[in-house]
Amino acid sequence: MVSRLQLDRWLMMGMIGFVIGLMGFFMHQLIEQIVDFKWDTIEDLIDDENMGLAWLFSVGYSVAFVLFSAALVIFWRPSAGGSGVPEVTGFLNGTRIRHIFSIQTMVAKFFSCVAAIGSGMPVGPEGPMIHLGALVGAGVSQFRSETLNFKLPFFERFRNSEDRRNFISAGAAAGVASAFGSPIGGLLFSMEEVSSFWTTTLSWQIFFCCMVSTFTTDLFNSAFEGFRYMGDFGQFKTMRYILFNIDKGVDVNILMFIPTVLLGVLGGGFGAFFTILNLKVQRLRKRILSGMTVKWKQSIVRLAEPAILMVLVATASLFLPDAFSCTQYTCVPPNSTEIREGCINSTTSPYHVDIGAVVPYTCPSGSIYQQNGTWATNGTYSELASLLFGTTEQAVRLLFSRSTHVMFNYGALSVAFVFYYLFTCLACGTALASGILVPMLLIGGIYGRMVGLGMVSLFGVHTDKTSYWKWMDPGAFALIGAASFFGGVTRLTMAVTVIMMELTNDVQVLLPVMVSVMVAKWIGDFFTHPIFHAVLEMKCIPFLESDPRVTIMGKSIKLELYTVKNVMTSPVVTVCERASVQELAAIMLNTCHGGFPVLHIKANGKGRFIGIITRLELMVLLSKEDLFEESDGNGPSDISHDVNWVEFEELLIDKLANPEAKADMLKRYIEEDRYKNKYLDLTYYYNQSAFSIPEQFSLQRTYVLFRTLGLRHLTVVDKHNEVTGIVTRKDLMGFNMVERLSEVMQVELDKL
Amino acid sequence: MVSRLQLDRWLMMGMIGFVIGLMGFFMHQLIEQIVDFKWDTIEDLIDDENMGLAWLFSVGYSVAFVLFSAALVIFWRPSAGGSGVPEVTGFLNGTRIRHIFSIQTMVAKFFSCVAAIGSGMPVGPEGPMIHLGALVGAGVSQFRSETLNFKLPFFERFRNSEDRRNFISAGAAAGVASAFGSPIGGLLFSMEEVSSFWTTTLSWQIFFCCMVSTFTTDLFNSAFEGFRYMGDFGQFKTMRYILFNIDKGVDVNILMFIPTVLLGVLGGGFGAFFTILNLKVQRLRKRILSGMTVKWKQSIVRLAEPAILMVLVATASLFLPDAFSCTQYTCVPPNSTEIREGCINSTTSPYHVDIGAVVPYTCPSGSIYQQNGTWATNGTYSELASLLFGTTEQAVRLLFSRSTHVMFNYGALSVAFVFYYLFTCLACGTALASGILVPMLLIGGIYGRMVGLGMVSLFGVHTDKTSYWKWMDPGAFALIGAASFFGGVTRLTMAVTVIMMELTNDVQVLLPVMVSVMVAKWIGDFFTHPIFHAVLEMKCIPFLESDPRVTIMGKSIKLELYTVKNVMTSPVVTVCERASVQELAAIMLNTCHGGFPVLHIKANGKGRFIGIITRLELMVLLSKEDLFEESDGNGPSDISHDVNWVEFEELLIDKLANPEAKADMLKRYIEEDRYKNKYLDLTYYYNQSAFSIPEQFSLQRTYVLFRTLGLRHLTVVDKHNEVTGIVTRKDLMGFNMVERLSEVMQVELDKL
Repeated sequence: MVSRLQLDRWLMMGMIGFVIGLMGFFMHQLIEQIVDFKWDTIEDLIDDENMGLAWLFSVGYSVAFVLFSAALVIFWRPSAGGSGVPEVTGFLNGTRIRHIFSIQTMVAKFFSCVAAIGSGMPVGPEGPMIHLGALVGAGVSQFRSETLNFKLPFFERFRNSEDRRNFISAGAAAGVASAFGSPIGGLLFSMEEVSSFWTTTLSWQIFFCCMVSTFTTDLFNSAFEGFRYMGDFGQFKTMRYILFNIDKGVDVNILMFIPTVLLGVLGGGFGAFFTILNLKVQRLRKRILSGMTVKWKQSIVRLAEPAILMVLVATASLFLPDAFSCTQYTCVPPNSTEIREGCINSTTSPYHVDIGAVVPYTCPSGSIYQQNGTWATNGTYSELASLLFGTTEQAVRLLFSRSTHVMFNYGALSVAFVFYYLFTCLACGTALASGILVPMLLIGGIYGRMVGLGMVSLFGVHTDKTSYWKWMDPGAFALIGAASFFGGVTRLTMAVTVIMMELTNDVQVLLPVMVSVMVAKWIGDFFTHPIFHAVLEMKCIPFLESDPRVTIMGKSIKLELYTVKNVMTSPVVTVCERASVQELAAIMLNTCHGGFPVLHIKANGKGRFIGIITRLELMVLLSKEDLFEESDGNGPSDISHDVNWVEFEELLIDKLANPEAKADMLKRYIEEDRYKNKYLDLTYYYNQSAFSIPEQFSLQRTYVLFRTLGLRHLTVVDKHNEVTGIVTRKDLMGFNMVERLSEVMQVELDKL
Repeated sequence: MVSRLQLDRWLMMGMIGFVIGLMGFFMHQLIEQIVDFKWDTIEDLIDDENMGLAWLFSVGYSVAFVLFSAALVIFWRPSAGGSGVPEVTGFLNGTRIRHIFSIQTMVAKFFSCVAAIGSGMPVGPEGPMIHLGALVGAGVSQFRSETLNFKLPFFERFRNSEDRRNFISAGAAAGVASAFGSPIGGLLFSMEEVSSFWTTTLSWQIFFCCMVSTFTTDLFNSAFEGFRYMGDFGQFKTMRYILFNIDKGVDVNILMFIPTVLLGVLGGGFGAFFTILNLKVQRLRKRILSGMTVKWKQSIVRLAEPAILMVLVATASLFLPDAFSCTQYTCVPPNSTEIREGCINSTTSPYHVDIGAVVPYTCPSGSIYQQNGTWATNGTYSELASLLFGTTEQAVRLLFSRSTHVMFNYGALSVAFVFYYLFTCLACGTALASGILVPMLLIGGIYGRMVGLGMVSLFGVHTDKTSYWKWMDPGAFALIGAASFFGGVTRLTMAVTVIMMELTNDVQVLLPVMVSVMVAKWIGDFFTHPIFHAVLEMKCIPFLESDPRVTIMGKSIKLELYTVKNVMTSPVVTVCERASVQELAAIMLNTCHGGFPVLHIKANGKGRFIGIITRLELMVLLSKEDLFEESDGNGPSDISHDVNWVEFEELLIDKLANPEAKADMLKRYIEEDRYKNKYLDLTYYYNQSAFSIPEQFSLQRTYVLFRTLGLRHLTVVDKHNEVTGIVTRKDLMGFNMVERLSEVMQVELDKL
């Protein structure tokens, strides 16, 4: 019952998952190495009270990595910059984007991302992992590389655009799965955000791919720490493989939904503002760069930008904590609601600050002694340094930790919020290959914790386990806040919820998380687009939404009231079933259309639509001179000839090799007389299953047809089946429909 | 930016969610009342050593409920029988099924389901909740009821088939969400299994609907226990709202995947066998029933069947435990790997049997005393009674409980396995309104625990918390086993995984659960269809899979190689743009097609395809005599007339009122002479945006077009745009394509 093809497809999904899992493992370990060395050295230097040297080291080390990261992108592979999510999304929607799937891009992206995150810039590796995953999906499944110029004889059946697209969707999903350790979350992320075409069968295969990817990353990570083999290969320690594992969940209470809705509103507002701010910065950057005419100046500016940003980040993270006084370790003793200073972690009082999790910075560590039968300390730590030092993951873990009501106060949280909000917003869009998913969790976690802290300030600490107020845990609100900001920026729902569940192992707060995500989405949608779509627009990637939405003068237009005739492109360049070689060559040289309707010439001399042929297919056919037929001088004959079959596979290319030589060939065809009476019979080559619709077809249905079936060309015919127009992606883009329909409306108005 | 229509849609989703949540609450509480009374009474009677009376009560009580449940279905609403999932799935795929969305069906389903589950039959409420949810979605969104004959003036804009379909999808999802307390799982279940059409926007709205539904159920449940108000309204106790909450997760180990794969294989095998067995029973039942010609005999047999089954179930569950000896409470003392009898639960030794969770049955309870400083007991309990008494949920909770290595032994587990496997298989398909989701978890949990127990028997109990072998917990394997059987029967992947996560709050075993589900799916697919699809086939509901699969003589056929001409229906009944009333009436009376291509008659007398009109639209038009036009005697004129606009909404009906009167009317048209020269101008009524494809269109693309766009009729035209055939759902069903393509292949063979 299972065909060989299906079996191969599953196998391929497993292979893609494995490669991505391995890649995720290497990236994780490399980043850990770089980051650990940086912060260990800095903390040592601070311990020695050598702030100057610490600053020098921090800035030097970080800027070096940032320069390396940016240089890779700027001088080698510009397509490796940014997160890559909009590009992959655009590609899967049907737009070809140059170079995003080449081996060099992969190498550049990998190292640029490792260096960028290693440097300490507040960015995350998840976006690049999505792009890298898509790259693996595109590369492994094809078993060939144009760059490396090889082509293995396996899986040739997957060298078609549908399979390629599916493997890329799978790769993107597996990238998230590996980076977050979140297989179902990755699957849903790919479905909700990245992919435009999705089937149930595909989701099963991607499920498998994500599973293998997560498994591989977890398995290798289980045995290694900073590339040091630890001997416990195969033991998946929860603390390692669940990124932000929550131990003690809280029971949900209906009152919890009041601050949750507030968090949702904040998430939507902050998220929308983040998107708007980020776009403004990106536009400004674009304007400044395009103002420069000299290429190398542009490059220098693009290289200098993240470096300067890095200097600011490194300096701020090192000196800002100095502006705050040290905090003494505190806890809430058993059977008490009073926060007491000096006492420390004990099994009976869980409301503590965990020594070892926080950063001492320049604060005196003090000593631990026993007082009245309980352990106490006069040691101190720096709240802000705990949030700014180390990786963003570590900071998130602190924010999410439960029963730590007294760990952070408003001051440190506010400063950290501004710090991360600002720098993440500025860093996202520089030349670095980096994403913003974990920083988003961090930003949301900070204001979430502030709201939670506000509740504690208002209603006091409740340590009683059975208390009605036990839900008032700042750590739980940090989690909900993180989800709300994630939702407010990306506007995803299912994916965010499941990712939060898988990241934290906390199903208890599922409902509050859902509520905050939903509210954040509503609020955010009210202000602006989701960030990935806004970036798509800014990058001029023509993206077709699943539902068409056209707004003219503030009013949303009912597309049912218009016909395809209102937006189609006309006239159309067509070719005949049996076409003159010289005419075809001229068409190839003078137009850049991707497809041409094929006509059958009727007795009355007019052409009836019979199918479509793509530019690439025509080019392949034109390069085979032995296919050309001599005409009898009276135009093409209707007699069928013996056909030299061009191998089917030769037509299945997706890029033209050696375009200059092809152009020369076409010019020769036009100039040389001996091609004058040559004809090419397209009968066996054109696509007979091309859609055509009548002119009066409703615009709404046209859009749905085009988008749902993922068409590239849709021919419009009149009642005699003669071609009157063609619809391509561009014609259905929002701005284009607005323009054409405005004209139509104007004509209607003029009539009155 | 948000239109009024969108806002209303969100509002409606919230309302549907709320109603379903409330319904879930009532169902939950009612069932709890009925079940608790039954088992409390039985345990009291057993305590009094009154086995005879216990049996009498058990059988009498249960059979009464079963009879009530079955009678509702058999004598009142046959459409309320079974789980209803196949019917809803079929409907959403595009098949009209009578009566599945009426108020009576809802009432019957609700009470039949409550009674069936309350009786103690090993069935679950989740399937019926899906149907009930879909019913609510269909009813609330339309604000009218044909049965109750009312129609409120709200939300009229939702009275179209697309919106209705979406609300039904949402309702089905919210049903699962409420029953399992699993909002994302419900959403994914609806997406993966129930719905055939899905968009991202829809998934956001369903997300909201599921959230509201779960929230409502949890909120009300939080305050009530058996309809008694408990005063803690608003406190969502984890133990209540997470059905099978797991407290102590285990770290995953790579060795864990060996038994996990075994469980996957078992799940696939047992699941496929379950499906096959169930279908055989259903076919046998059908044959026996259809052999009876008298209606009341059929009813009696259908009524007697579940009653007899119930007698067997009640008797077996009461007396089977008697065949086993009592088990003494055991535990593993601290710092030991030896299972010791008599010692009981202590905080230092978590490897215990929890007194209170298990059922004493006829076993002596003994007393608790202190021995050598530890607490011990000479009390005993019945393993099998613990699994067979009470609700299936309670049994699942016992099976999933962690660190209870010593609670059950092979004997009791084997008997319980056979008991549940057999009786669930027999009960599913009787007249009762009930589903099998929770029993599936139970069956899988049993063999999962047996495999886990096998591991413990082989390698010993490992109590050390840091042990490499800590993963060897029978409770964890019970969970994995449950997922594997769920996956093996339904073949869902994402939905099963997320439901298991949400049901148990255990993200740690996510990867093993995924692996077991994946393996179970592969193995199961190798043997047979998923159960819901198999039942669809058995119920003769024409279901179009998303991918066409045609197998002729064991070989899968490439549909790309065939054209639509090979399967289309021909000739086609067509109507003219301006049609004679008598001809139309004759067509209406003599055919039962749902749609007719509309032709424009060309100069040469042949008809050109211009659109399509449905039967219902034609009937509405025909009943308006004032639309009829007189002809000039020379056939229809081409001059356009003033048209009396039939109100748009009148055409938007989905059922014909008073069909007998309409038939009489048509007969009158044919018989009476004065209609002889009357014509009906369809110009303004037919659908101009109807798809047509040429005869040589590839069959594969035809299928994709038809299925993806959810068409009902697809007209096939020749090169002159004349209608040569039509494709409907029936033509694309597997069996039909096999038949037609076999003929084509035969013709090809004969040619050679």
